[in-house]
Amino acid sequence: VSLELLIADEACAAALSDDALLAAMARFEGALARASAAAGLVPAAEAEVIARVCAAARFDALALAREGRAGTLVIPFVRELRQQVAAVSPSAARHVHAGATSQDVIDTAAVLCLRPAGERILVLAGRLGDAAAELARRHGATAIAARTLLQPALPVTFGWKAANWLAPLARSLPGLRRALGEAAALQFGGPAGNLSGFAGKADGVAAALAAELGLALPAIPWHSARDRFARLGAEAAILTGVAAKIARDVSLLMQAEVGEAREAAAPGRGGSSSMAHKRNPALSMLALEAAHRAPGLAATLLGELAPEHERGLGQWQGQWFTLRELFCATASGLDAMAEAIQGLEVDAVAMRAGAEKLAREVGGEAQGADAAMIERVLAEWRAARA
Amino acid sequence: VSLELLIADEACAAALSDDALLAAMARFEGALARASAAAGLVPAAEAEVIARVCAAARFDALALAREGRAGTLVIPFVRELRQQVAAVSPSAARHVHAGATSQDVIDTAAVLCLRPAGERILVLAGRLGDAAAELARRHGATAIAARTLLQPALPVTFGWKAANWLAPLARSLPGLRRALGEAAALQFGGPAGNLSGFAGKADGVAAALAAELGLALPAIPWHSARDRFARLGAEAAILTGVAAKIARDVSLLMQAEVGEAREAAAPGRGGSSSMAHKRNPALSMLALEAAHRAPGLAATLLGELAPEHERGLGQWQGQWFTLRELFCATASGLDAMAEAIQGLEVDAVAMRAGAEKLAREVGGEAQGADAAMIERVLAEWRAARA
Amino acid sequence: VSLELLIADEACAAALSDDALLAAMARFEGALARASAAAGLVPAAEAEVIARVCAAARFDALALAREGRAGTLVIPFVRELRQQVAAVSPSAARHVHAGATSQDVIDTAAVLCLRPAGERILVLAGRLGDAAAELARRHGATAIAARTLLQPALPVTFGWKAANWLAPLARSLPGLRRALGEAAALQFGGPAGNLSGFAGKADGVAAALAAELGLALPAIPWHSARDRFARLGAEAAILTGVAAKIARDVSLLMQAEVGEAREAAAPGRGGSSSMAHKRNPALSMLALEAAHRAPGLAATLLGELAPEHERGLGQWQGQWFTLRELFCATASGLDAMAEAIQGLEVDAVAMRAGAEKLAREVGGEAQGADAAMIERVLAEWRAARA
Amino acid sequence: VSLELLIADEACAAALSDDALLAAMARFEGALARASAAAGLVPAAEAEVIARVCAAARFDALALAREGRAGTLVIPFVRELRQQVAAVSPSAARHVHAGATSQDVIDTAAVLCLRPAGERILVLAGRLGDAAAELARRHGATAIAARTLLQPALPVTFGWKAANWLAPLARSLPGLRRALGEAAALQFGGPAGNLSGFAGKADGVAAALAAELGLALPAIPWHSARDRFARLGAEAAILTGVAAKIARDVSLLMQAEVGEAREAAAPGRGGSSSMAHKRNPALSMLALEAAHRAPGLAATLLGELAPEHERGLGQWQGQWFTLRELFCATASGLDAMAEAIQGLEVDAVAMRAGAEKLAREVGGEAQGADAAMIERVLAEWRAARA
Repeated sequence: VSLELLIADEACAAALSDDALLAAMARFEGALARASAAAGLVPAAEAEVIARVCAAARFDALALAREGRAGTLVIPFVRELRQQVAAVSPSAARHVHAGATSQDVIDTAAVLCLRPAGERILVLAGRLGDAAAELARRHGATAIAARTLLQPALPVTFGWKAANWLAPLARSLPGLRRALGEAAALQFGGPAGNLSGFAGKADGVAAALAAELGLALPAIPWHSARDRFARLGAEAAILTGVAAKIARDVSLLMQAEVGEAREAAAPGRGGSSSMAHKRNPALSMLALEAAHRAPGLAATLLGELAPEHERGLGQWQGQWFTLRELFCATASGLDAMAEAIQGLEVDAVAMRAGAEKLAREVGGEAQGADAAMIERVLAEWRAARA
Repeated sequence: VSLELLIADEACAAALSDDALLAAMARFEGALARASAAAGLVPAAEAEVIARVCAAARFDALALAREGRAGTLVIPFVRELRQQVAAVSPSAARHVHAGATSQDVIDTAAVLCLRPAGERILVLAGRLGDAAAELARRHGATAIAARTLLQPALPVTFGWKAANWLAPLARSLPGLRRALGEAAALQFGGPAGNLSGFAGKADGVAAALAAELGLALPAIPWHSARDRFARLGAEAAILTGVAAKIARDVSLLMQAEVGEAREAAAPGRGGSSSMAHKRNPALSMLALEAAHRAPGLAATLLGELAPEHERGLGQWQGQWFTLRELFCATASGLDAMAEAIQGLEVDAVAMRAGAEKLAREVGGEAQGADAAMIERVLAEWRAARA
Repeated sequence: VSLELLIADEACAAALSDDALLAAMARFEGALARASAAAGLVPAAEAEVIARVCAAARFDALALAREGRAGTLVIPFVRELRQQVAAVSPSAARHVHAGATSQDVIDTAAVLCLRPAGERILVLAGRLGDAAAELARRHGATAIAARTLLQPALPVTFGWKAANWLAPLARSLPGLRRALGEAAALQFGGPAGNLSGFAGKADGVAAALAAELGLALPAIPWHSARDRFARLGAEAAILTGVAAKIARDVSLLMQAEVGEAREAAAPGRGGSSSMAHKRNPALSMLALEAAHRAPGLAATLLGELAPEHERGLGQWQGQWFTLRELFCATASGLDAMAEAIQGLEVDAVAMRAGAEKLAREVGGEAQGADAAMIERVLAEWRAARA
Repeated sequence: VSLELLIADEACAAALSDDALLAAMARFEGALARASAAAGLVPAAEAEVIARVCAAARFDALALAREGRAGTLVIPFVRELRQQVAAVSPSAARHVHAGATSQDVIDTAAVLCLRPAGERILVLAGRLGDAAAELARRHGATAIAARTLLQPALPVTFGWKAANWLAPLARSLPGLRRALGEAAALQFGGPAGNLSGFAGKADGVAAALAAELGLALPAIPWHSARDRFARLGAEAAILTGVAAKIARDVSLLMQAEVGEAREAAAPGRGGSSSMAHKRNPALSMLALEAAHRAPGLAATLLGELAPEHERGLGQWQGQWFTLRELFCATASGLDAMAEAIQGLEVDAVAMRAGAEKLAREVGGEAQGADAAMIERVLAEWRAARA
């Protein structure tokens, strides 16, 4: 990951890096050894060797990927891991990965990485919402022209406009939180999915493994039931769009001819490689960029819900990459707009001038329900944050 | 709607027809008159005239559409409605649509139609799930070969396979129900969105209007906050995919070379226009067809989350049509698979033969946790149905 | 089709109506009878009966769709057609549809309808381009501020801006024309696709059938090779986006705060149901609306390229509907923008004022290569129109 | 790039790596200096210094990306480049990037990288087609059951089936070649797009720059006209789907219950991490995986056709990444299927047995036009290869 940071949040990208995934895969294998030991299927001492090696193991992602292309990443990964374990305890090495299947490892590791990445997104969404809430509170009496179909309509208040930004965030932050919670489920079914390799102790091993990893134990494995990832992708795409809505408005308000708000200046921010006089809505640009990519990525996940039989041929194999790109885009947009709204320079004088001009044209200044609506949205935001 | 019924559920299409939308638009206008009367803004008698005319009004959809293309459907619609009211009471006609904006009418009417259409989808999803649950219960001891990457893996049971079909349905039926509930919100903001045309009585009118229509009163209008429709679209697409997953498996099991299950024969069902000997998976075909269209439609909604300012230019105007097509596709797939699974002809002998052949090849017949998993999934389904 | 005309070009919708498709299906069956007669497989007199009945046949689309849902539209269609033929000549009726398969009829009929619909789109694209070319010619010396990232950059000319609108049209009109030409290919393979039902005379029948219908005879049927439809969809989506680009700029120039150009006023055009003072970019709205739907529809076609074996399960069955909606959207956007650009009210004084203000700020007025670029684009447009 | 190689062709990924893009960006700047020198705008000696430094320059992609996020990658890139030039010749450093804008650099560099990546795709498509052509030639008399809607239909030949795989490739290889040719156009417009910074010598500089880079000189810059990239993406997605169609059939033929063809075994290929007995269609899996992602990526590009004014806010900024991922997916699928079809193990005995069983069921073995169709497709392939 390097140039991709142009369009990704770095913290989110780190949580979803190759190394993070490989470490999570190793964590799965270590936890499996312990869970199997707890069920009496693996000697405790050997399980501890496996777990210790897994906790410290390092992998050559490039070499694994090249070999994994022939089938699954897990084959060279497990071979490598077995060798590292065997260097400590040859007898322990036999138990590595015992009873699991490739998809158990990849899916569980993906979930383990998506969880902190999702937490990062929730933090960013919280920051953005708090900043919008602050605007809603502060500008309840700042008149501004409402614009419909890009034409001036009637005067409203800027606080109310900010409440409009906030309301979908107050729904979509909990939306992603719920989807993340539902997706944080262990994948563990073994070769056919029914945990047939555990001599009747499958339920115990599965429960111990889920507990070890801090994941929910699902009713049944989800090798071919990808609805949770599809929902996660949809919620991420929605949050991306919600941030882009704010970016749309900021970039329009920041037009030189409008000049009612602008992103804060900062060293190196919003400049042009060729026009020193420019001040670009560089943060809004990032949020709009992310929103251009999110729907297609979410659609990919929505199109992978019907795999063949017990493990599909091409649906799940790329989902890690699609979710990674989508989460990084979501975080990129939210991070940019959190900063943009926290530092937004509001030109209340210009807003009022535009609103007054409009009021004169349409004759009179009707009283709207701005204040009550702002209060209700703020209450929803407080509930969403809780 | 005529040939579209090839790829649409007819009951869903009826709930979302042109006539249904126009009737719902009139219902909005009638309810608005009553709500305004309750707030003392319109004489009660005139409001009743408006409401009565609205309840009985009929419209020429084609003529309205032709004219509405120049801006919004609501302009010719309201003019036509005013004329019908004026024929009864000229003084009442002045109050028609007073304080509302085009998008209030369209969005609320869309919600009023999407609700029964969504209920239809939930009924179909319930039928499909009940049928899959029945298979899960009945075939807990029917051995079948699990197939991963389209190759035989290990023996499992067919009841467990059906439980795999059911599990995502047990999540996705409540998922759509929740999204429908959240989307069943009044749209009512007036020209600028802040209900400025009601002389300080906006909150009362809005509350009465929501009550009249049986919709939730949102904290703030959602002219430019389309997240609920995006979520609704995503949940519909997910349900479509969940049905298609079952269709995928049925069509593969029904291959002549496999022959472990087949869709029931019926007069006119699954035939070919040129090959009398064929028995096609015609119901599965419908579900797979729907799942090919759903992701692109859902992506359209996910791409319309960032309208300009207080009313966007091109985002919301087509959402009714996109949601209509998507809901009809979802219902088409669910309806087809409910029928397919209710009537599924299971060849337990062939299943067992395949499983036994596989067991001989892989040496021995490990005991899986099928029964426990089936039980847990059935419990989730019961909870989802409640 | 009725309310859909809000977001569809009516002429295009008519070319792609249910009736048009059914008539084209009958035309296929009539031409097949004649082609079979030419090869000596059907008595000439009976072929003429079939062709005559087909030319006049009318169908109940709704009834056919309801029945066709059980498998394919063609089964009830052919039965109905046979009955109509049998009423004239019972012996002729046996030959109806002989040797063909359902997909032959549907795909060929789709192509027969898409051709005139595509021609309509090309006409509209031509109009839009001619109007943009006229602006490019007329405003070669009208200074205007270039705007990058929604901020003023440097002065350019409005003619050059119009040339920027025109250049992608000069590529994309030929792009669609080529894709239409490639797609205008007969579908004719019979039940398995290899024309096995013609006793060694398959090539002759196919050639005669193609000639009869004015379609190209492809090297091999394309039941499972949907690349031409995917390309057609992509080109339609591109044209939709090219029109939307112009709409984007017009709507931004038309903002009250910018006021450098506006869509022409017309009775009933661009009004608001609640704000009499507004003048909305109603035509630009239509083009932007179409461009929100086109990518998802095109993606659907791009996702249907891998059907199973000789006839897929769910890929081709819905393509008629997807292409219909996409073509109608493309035509809607082009039609709207052709009218918008033909009637565009250019405020050259306001443009120049903005450009001069900008020139003062950035110091001096560099000479651009506007004129040469305009000339080159106009030459490309002339070539594209030829 | 490391784990991404699981779902990417490595040669394609190398052509589109961060380092490749940065090198191409430097190549643009070096060529610009030379072209400016040819027009007398920069001293020749200083231009040569710039070109030499550019040819050897190395960049820290991560550092550039972190800084570039605040606006554009080109700002830190040019500053870094200027410093490297200044270390050799302070006076030359002033001329670096003179007259160009960020998007000129990024877009031209993207094109310079996409060209060899596209060539790689064409090579792979050629290999795949040659292998399919060989099957078409060799198996003109190998009977096999045609399967429609996943049910046996009638006997055909396997050579004819392979010709069906080949025909869309014979259209889509030239399709991508043409789109690549059209996209290989210089981006060069300067800050506003009209090349205003060249004192009347713009045309000469542009022509020299295009010649220096081996790119076409377009009629006008394409900062806001993204149709060529959209078309490129669509053609790449089509090729991905065409490869996936072959993968679909191979994986179905390879089912244990069918057993008519299989991917060649190879060390480490197609194995399972848990089931030693399995032989998976691992290559087909890669092609199907790629085809799941391609439509969403192509849709992203189709949704970025309407940027604001002279440089958009979020549309073009991510296209490099989207095209990169799409091209790598296309190459991944083609590479996998080229290998799969080159090594395909055809079980002609099993094919014939299935066809004969079917022939008995349907009564008689009609003669199809397989041979003539195969010949025509082979001729098209030869033409496409030329």
